[in-house]
Amino acid sequence: MKSDIDRLMAERNLDWIIIEGPDGFAGANPDYAYFTNGQHLTGTVLKQRGAPAMIVYRAMERQQAADTGLVMVPRERWNLREIRRQFPDNFASEVELLRRMYSDLGISGRVGLYGTVKAGPHFAVTIALGQQLPGIEFVAEFENDLLSTARLTKDATEIDRMREVGRKTCAVVQAVVDLIGAGHADGDTLVDASGRTITIGDIRQLIYRESAALGLENPEGTIFAQGRDAGMPHAQGDDSAALKLGQAIVFDIFPREAGGGYYHDMTRTFAIGYAPPELQRTYDQVLGAFSQVVDELETGAPTKPYQDMVCTYFETRGHPTIGSTFPIEEGYIHGLGHGLGLEIHEDFGFPAHQDRGDVILPGAVFSVEPGLYYPSKGYGVRIEDTIYCTPDGEFENLTPFPKQLVIPIREA
Amino acid sequence: MKSDIDRLMAERNLDWIIIEGPDGFAGANPDYAYFTNGQHLTGTVLKQRGAPAMIVYRAMERQQAADTGLVMVPRERWNLREIRRQFPDNFASEVELLRRMYSDLGISGRVGLYGTVKAGPHFAVTIALGQQLPGIEFVAEFENDLLSTARLTKDATEIDRMREVGRKTCAVVQAVVDLIGAGHADGDTLVDASGRTITIGDIRQLIYRESAALGLENPEGTIFAQGRDAGMPHAQGDDSAALKLGQAIVFDIFPREAGGGYYHDMTRTFAIGYAPPELQRTYDQVLGAFSQVVDELETGAPTKPYQDMVCTYFETRGHPTIGSTFPIEEGYIHGLGHGLGLEIHEDFGFPAHQDRGDVILPGAVFSVEPGLYYPSKGYGVRIEDTIYCTPDGEFENLTPFPKQLVIPIREA
Repeated sequence: MKSDIDRLMAERNLDWIIIEGPDGFAGANPDYAYFTNGQHLTGTVLKQRGAPAMIVYRAMERQQAADTGLVMVPRERWNLREIRRQFPDNFASEVELLRRMYSDLGISGRVGLYGTVKAGPHFAVTIALGQQLPGIEFVAEFENDLLSTARLTKDATEIDRMREVGRKTCAVVQAVVDLIGAGHADGDTLVDASGRTITIGDIRQLIYRESAALGLENPEGTIFAQGRDAGMPHAQGDDSAALKLGQAIVFDIFPREAGGGYYHDMTRTFAIGYAPPELQRTYDQVLGAFSQVVDELETGAPTKPYQDMVCTYFETRGHPTIGSTFPIEEGYIHGLGHGLGLEIHEDFGFPAHQDRGDVILPGAVFSVEPGLYYPSKGYGVRIEDTIYCTPDGEFENLTPFPKQLVIPIREA
Repeated sequence: MKSDIDRLMAERNLDWIIIEGPDGFAGANPDYAYFTNGQHLTGTVLKQRGAPAMIVYRAMERQQAADTGLVMVPRERWNLREIRRQFPDNFASEVELLRRMYSDLGISGRVGLYGTVKAGPHFAVTIALGQQLPGIEFVAEFENDLLSTARLTKDATEIDRMREVGRKTCAVVQAVVDLIGAGHADGDTLVDASGRTITIGDIRQLIYRESAALGLENPEGTIFAQGRDAGMPHAQGDDSAALKLGQAIVFDIFPREAGGGYYHDMTRTFAIGYAPPELQRTYDQVLGAFSQVVDELETGAPTKPYQDMVCTYFETRGHPTIGSTFPIEEGYIHGLGHGLGLEIHEDFGFPAHQDRGDVILPGAVFSVEPGLYYPSKGYGVRIEDTIYCTPDGEFENLTPFPKQLVIPIREA
């Protein structure tokens, strides 16, 4: 969490960190959002080890900069007009402004690079600055970097926000269940009170509208996949298709706070009106695997054994799994879960193959999402909640929503 | 436009371009979205000058890759498992995989870097690859880069999408006008039919809900600023404030296609019930400036004279402007407009100061948004439409919405 940053800088022998916040990436700059307290502004966060973080901002966004709570450094402190007289080329003047800024602020030593950027301009400026500031060594981390590591464990303020996003996400799912439950059958098709066919597109529009009303957004879309599509984990579902009775529907929703912020991740599998016996049996097995994992979660435990546990659970019930088959297209074909927070996928997982040595730390928030996929048989099942490991080593489920396969509908 | 890319590569002496599409930036990677035909997938686009673009994708997203219409290159063609046996370190194995990929695909010469990335990993990998592939010279453009330049002019397919986003944006604004127009006065406060006060937060929720229902999103928020806030161009508006009669309301909405796509940008200034004479006079002047600019737009013309025209127009009417005063906080304080498309701000503008030599090209889409700001007097006015310069040099207004200051309300 944030209070770990100085320690993590020391471990990496970093003297400073720079987190870029260029224009246009409001919702897609988790490292920068980690520091800006929900404010949207163009700027750069700079932090020396042991000192509070600063934000370099533009005068026009003074108020937003103040609301970040960071130490404020107006970019206008450096006179771009005067610099441009000496360096008429825009690139040269930008590099000169940054050179003066970094010098005046005392930035030196090993300097870590973070944030979301446009590849070309960032590369060009960093190379040029590195040549002009021999006292700086830029450090680019490839994985398990400082900020991803800090962000893996959430503090109380972050959990308050994530709990609220979970509550709202469940409200969106409930709205979908309510709409379906208010329908009735016309043959094997679901229709509304006026007899109109309900399509997946209708459901998706409801999801987006209810999300927006609650201050959520779905930047990566939503999975509402029926029948064979439910058997393919990445199929989003066909908007033109009518909802059918007795089919598997995988509904995987992963919204975040609007404008960029904390995510939630949950999946329910539904069948409208009734479930065929094979689907019900598979559902019960997935729920059994889910429950076993959640019951056996332990603080400090490595994650890989949970993945292995699910493979064993499914294999003893006759399903192929990624634990023993590769490549694999049917059965249990993916990892058990992933960390989430300001990104939907963070650097923590229950690995199907390569074990990075992840362990469950207090403060961790992660999904648990076993599934079984049989596109050739026209169905798939996945069940997913978001789980929080509390500071005292308990586990809190952040997805307060029941797990029931069949949504009953009214008689026609 | 896209058909210019090979010519623009030749002008820059680029042999290849690489457009990164890492996980997690679905809505915030305009260069990558330019190639992926609305598909969301993790990958990399590679293009040699004179040859069609390719996409390196992951097997799990085969369908999305196919739907991009690009030449398909599965990343699994290179055997990461085997590479990892030789290079157990994750960074080393990733670099080795890319080294083999670039060699096998014949990538060499001057290679331009584009796309949205995480600063650290991209920098680390690019430096390492540059050392291991002496036949490649990575070229990082700082501004007016190849893809920004191509994207400045839109082709017919893009304009169809932008026209549709404009139509939907106007529908959202109409929904807001309808809600306000259905209210009535309780003193100087707007209330609904049941007598409940209508707040800016209520309006914002309506905006987000209606946007979502139409397949739009507002990643940078929406400005709905009343009174003094209307006098500050970047103030988003106070959600807890009640709507008041006779106050200036600046409503600036800039949504895009949901999940990342083309933007629209429009602003209306409203007053509920009635407008004080000074506000009406200022509104008429802003509308006069807007109309003069739009009437005099010419294909091929430089943009700077339009900014100067507006400064002169306002100064002859007694307003301070950025044309003659700096720094400036009241009057006409910003540039006249900006290009837009897959980003809300593209590399094209009507400059307040530094003239980059922008000219209005066929295919350009840009905002025209004069405004006058008097926070000390408790108001501001801005009027903005999105304008398209057609291939035959005509100008099409993509914002079909009337310009009228006062929203009449029912008698109490």
